[in-house]
Amino acid sequence: MSQILDEVLAANAAYAAEFGDKSELPLPPARRFAILTCMDARLDPAKYAGLAEGDAHVIRNAGGRASDDAIRSLVISYKLLGTREWFVIHHTDCGMELFDNDTMAELLASSLETASLSEQGWQDPGTGGGSTEGRYINWLSFKDNARSVIEDVQRIRSSPLVPADLPIHGYIYDCKSGRLVEVPEARSGVRAAA
Amino acid sequence: MSQILDEVLAANAAYAAEFGDKSELPLPPARRFAILTCMDARLDPAKYAGLAEGDAHVIRNAGGRASDDAIRSLVISYKLLGTREWFVIHHTDCGMELFDNDTMAELLASSLETASLSEQGWQDPGTGGGSTEGRYINWLSFKDNARSVIEDVQRIRSSPLVPADLPIHGYIYDCKSGRLVEVPEARSGVRAAA
Repeated sequence: MSQILDEVLAANAAYAAEFGDKSELPLPPARRFAILTCMDARLDPAKYAGLAEGDAHVIRNAGGRASDDAIRSLVISYKLLGTREWFVIHHTDCGMELFDNDTMAELLASSLETASLSEQGWQDPGTGGGSTEGRYINWLSFKDNARSVIEDVQRIRSSPLVPADLPIHGYIYDCKSGRLVEVPEARSGVRAAA
Repeated sequence: MSQILDEVLAANAAYAAEFGDKSELPLPPARRFAILTCMDARLDPAKYAGLAEGDAHVIRNAGGRASDDAIRSLVISYKLLGTREWFVIHHTDCGMELFDNDTMAELLASSLETASLSEQGWQDPGTGGGSTEGRYINWLSFKDNARSVIEDVQRIRSSPLVPADLPIHGYIYDCKSGRLVEVPEARSGVRAAA
């Protein structure tokens, strides 16, 4: 058995013991919105955006990118489950700013062990057993997180499956302060105040 | 301005005001594991698995599926950021069990409005303005959530970019009780207790 598994199951038992009326929550999100954000361990979207269970869809991947799979999820979110407003939220100090496709492909070709980052760049243990399969994947890294928010909102907006008037908000979560900071150039489909 | 946006920003301001020493959290996940789970609004992985900010990567999409994008994220998670144990967690009463590719394609071709589900099946408002683009997407729905967990763990395991000895646990979250229930047939790379 794994220590992590034991810890997760113990935490889960404590959560289930206090579950209460959450058993009655319906499937569609009560507050009818969705957040696309990064998998980063420091981000807790329920806490940083004030979500209770049942409130909103949360989609997360490396970078919070508008990948085909994220768009698949967003379209299911509105078309079948009624969300009508979306947030794209990247963050400061993102790991996706620390590499590019070539770097990742080389590291994976060198070994399947975890690499380390120093001032000389990424170093791989180089123990062998790597795979060149990484060359065939677009890892969706980026160099500028405001730019990536703008591009990702634009990519979602340009999908023929996304309603033209569905508001999409672009934000950056500041890992130093916990604050959401808008990327105003990303704003799309949001009506000005009357 | 949107009411949802106002609420999110107010909740975020309250969170940031109590941020404390979370500003010092490092980028790599402290507890070195990752969870792949569904975007469903009723699921709060931080609560159901006992995660504090900084602990673990959380990847979420419609269904918690092992899509190419989820595998992209998982490989970045271990190769660059050191996770060494993964969970695939689907859940009861999942929206992905309520449709198939043909249904979704037809609904999107009918309109871009939200459809509704009745005993007669999915009904679309049929207001026009739909798109046939939905026919070209695999929506990754499923009919059996234990089977989907097994298949998703197998798909991750069979990637040439995933270390053979990295444990992958398969679970179903019960929306009625909050409990994580193992899918034992999904277990992969997990050593038996000594």
